[in-house]
Amino acid sequence: MSDIATRVWNHKWKIDPIVRSLIDNDFYKLLMCQSIFRNRPDAHVTFSLINRSRNIRLADLIDEGELREQLDHIKSLSLTRGESTFLRGNTFYGKRQMFRSDFMEWFENMRLPDYHLEKRDGQYELTFEGKWHEVMLWEIPALAVLMELRGRAVLHDMRKFELQVLYARAMTKLWEKIGQLNELPHLRIADFGTRRRHSYLWQDWCVQAMVEGLGDKFVGTSNCLIAMKRDLEAIGTNAHELPMVFSALAGNDDELLQAPYKVLADWHEEHEGNLRIILPDTYGTKGFLDRAPDWLAGWTGIRIDSGDPAGGAETAIQWWKDRGEDPTKKLIIFSDGLDTDKIVELHNQFAGRARISFGWGTLLTNDFRGLTPDDGLAPFSMVCKAVSANGNPTVKLSDNPNKAMGPAAEIERYKRVFGVGQQEKMDVIV
Amino acid sequence: MSDIATRVWNHKWKIDPIVRSLIDNDFYKLLMCQSIFRNRPDAHVTFSLINRSRNIRLADLIDEGELREQLDHIKSLSLTRGESTFLRGNTFYGKRQMFRSDFMEWFENMRLPDYHLEKRDGQYELTFEGKWHEVMLWEIPALAVLMELRGRAVLHDMRKFELQVLYARAMTKLWEKIGQLNELPHLRIADFGTRRRHSYLWQDWCVQAMVEGLGDKFVGTSNCLIAMKRDLEAIGTNAHELPMVFSALAGNDDELLQAPYKVLADWHEEHEGNLRIILPDTYGTKGFLDRAPDWLAGWTGIRIDSGDPAGGAETAIQWWKDRGEDPTKKLIIFSDGLDTDKIVELHNQFAGRARISFGWGTLLTNDFRGLTPDDGLAPFSMVCKAVSANGNPTVKLSDNPNKAMGPAAEIERYKRVFGVGQQEKMDVIV
Repeated sequence: MSDIATRVWNHKWKIDPIVRSLIDNDFYKLLMCQSIFRNRPDAHVTFSLINRSRNIRLADLIDEGELREQLDHIKSLSLTRGESTFLRGNTFYGKRQMFRSDFMEWFENMRLPDYHLEKRDGQYELTFEGKWHEVMLWEIPALAVLMELRGRAVLHDMRKFELQVLYARAMTKLWEKIGQLNELPHLRIADFGTRRRHSYLWQDWCVQAMVEGLGDKFVGTSNCLIAMKRDLEAIGTNAHELPMVFSALAGNDDELLQAPYKVLADWHEEHEGNLRIILPDTYGTKGFLDRAPDWLAGWTGIRIDSGDPAGGAETAIQWWKDRGEDPTKKLIIFSDGLDTDKIVELHNQFAGRARISFGWGTLLTNDFRGLTPDDGLAPFSMVCKAVSANGNPTVKLSDNPNKAMGPAAEIERYKRVFGVGQQEKMDVIV
Repeated sequence: MSDIATRVWNHKWKIDPIVRSLIDNDFYKLLMCQSIFRNRPDAHVTFSLINRSRNIRLADLIDEGELREQLDHIKSLSLTRGESTFLRGNTFYGKRQMFRSDFMEWFENMRLPDYHLEKRDGQYELTFEGKWHEVMLWEIPALAVLMELRGRAVLHDMRKFELQVLYARAMTKLWEKIGQLNELPHLRIADFGTRRRHSYLWQDWCVQAMVEGLGDKFVGTSNCLIAMKRDLEAIGTNAHELPMVFSALAGNDDELLQAPYKVLADWHEEHEGNLRIILPDTYGTKGFLDRAPDWLAGWTGIRIDSGDPAGGAETAIQWWKDRGEDPTKKLIIFSDGLDTDKIVELHNQFAGRARISFGWGTLLTNDFRGLTPDDGLAPFSMVCKAVSANGNPTVKLSDNPNKAMGPAAEIERYKRVFGVGQQEKMDVIV
């Protein structure tokens, strides 16, 4: 018996929507959104898609009409009653009512603002301009849509069993990685792979495979919708956009130097425990920590998101020691371009010296490398970033010059203000 | 929307039947059945299960109650209207009405006779006794049931994603084999894997993967039900049971020596073209060919099912030359324990010297070697053979003494009568 109604229903869809929920988004975007909604409701920000992999000519691969249909569908989404109930009623990091009532009332009525789309030189110029706490919610779904549409373009010409074997290979590959990870005692690892996932269904599969394969070692997912559907912990804290926009809004060099701390002072007031995680690399980790106020050393942990991760962790451990803190009580979260070998290496190097945790992203949810003849499904490096705030360009330096962004003159100014010297260049794979 | 009725229906089954159709059977069994129905309707034969892999203790792995339920379900099967229509209306090897009306009328009313089941020393003694053309139809379903129940016992304790990755690995493995085979120009290969398949669903998947992956190089399946469902050619000719039973029915040594030709004389009268395939190894290929009448050299081809396959093919080619036949017009079918490496090797050795074709069995439909930690799903060597006819034991010598069967004294007698000397022992994997 096939269910005729289901089949007919499935054929009624004009498109197969990639993002079907406003909370098919990273949990930390919602946390930051609430913070911005309270502290910077008037900031006017532009987010922009940046495809660092210029050789992937997205505008040649993806039909503009299809892309617009997907983005228009996202614009039509609103928070469902069940999603609202989940956000209002759920315990996040042991705390109820993480989301305040005024924020939830606003969020329940929010629709994503319009987008601006143009083709240029084989790439899409996709920008979102408006209130910071609104446009910032576009980042993750926009990236997910582009990555999945590119995948669909490649999958389109594959036959039925080719497709089945493709997914069979991807499943086998992930399962072998999970087996390797499961040998690490006391591992703590989370899914951070929403933005550059192969597809929603695939991310959902990966998360469930992690649950079965790793048990308690898998601590949750950054994807709010999957956390809700699979009864998992939603994971995340804050991101570079906070110091970047705060810095762009700074009136002068002195305010600029203080901006990364000012934004964390707001956060300090709003959150405690596992949400007090320092992301120190926006303008160079070393200078940030050297100048940091002592209350920051009291925070729960640090997230290492660029540069040499072992070096970053050593820097953090030394810093805590210098500030009289016990590193073994601190949390170090690695989240930059991880794959199993690197996770095993970092785990073996730092287990016992600090509490450590891993945010595994693209190579969890999109490791289709080597699975198609011309590697047409390999993930690539694409981001969607705040590029200006109230008319001022934003800047990111990070601990890897290959991840730096912003106008050259502003980059030089930031380097001077934050005292960033020579940095080691590292390849950005994903 | 899930289909509630489907779900409820699925839960109503007391068992999950392994064999659900009388034509989930090898096509050559039906061809031979019709021939026996006409020529030897009174022969009383016993078929018996023989597990050559004594280390696989089937009675420890498989619950007797479950086995009886599956066998009882097979006893309850009768030919459906659609199956009958297919057999009556289909073209087999270009010929309509391959199955005569009197045979079809009998087959439509046939139920499989009873079985006899006992446990002994960790093995099942499973026998079928009765009219030859009835009990012979038990061979394939009995083997398929035992192999699949053994698989189910191993699969029972696996978790959901473990299972999914198991099948993902098996799919990947087969797809890689298919890719390797697809590089052979003018390959002709068929599925011969019903009897020792992992499961019905898996055989069905393998066949469909062969269709997509090999196109015209895949010439059909021995499984009559799958041929019907997937619109493929049903493939097969005749098997050892014909000369074995005819030989057991022989009154003396002279009749014995003629029995293997007598059975083919019947076949010669009934069939032509691609169904005229010699299976020469029952009592030694060399002697069989040396003594063969000239009309046999006029047959379409030969099937090599034991011994060194290249040696067997060379013997056949030389024999045709000696009899004034052109080997390049003859068909050689390899069907013994094949896997891709052997297929590639034989193809490269004989392509152009004869028309060649492969009947790929167990390592097509049950290559789960290496996919579970203790290799609990690896296929093993199990057969179901005619062991006596009208009270006389049957004997098979084959071109590999490890495949010989029958009482020792009878084996010696047959060796003397058929003039079989020293033979090379070869491992029997599947």
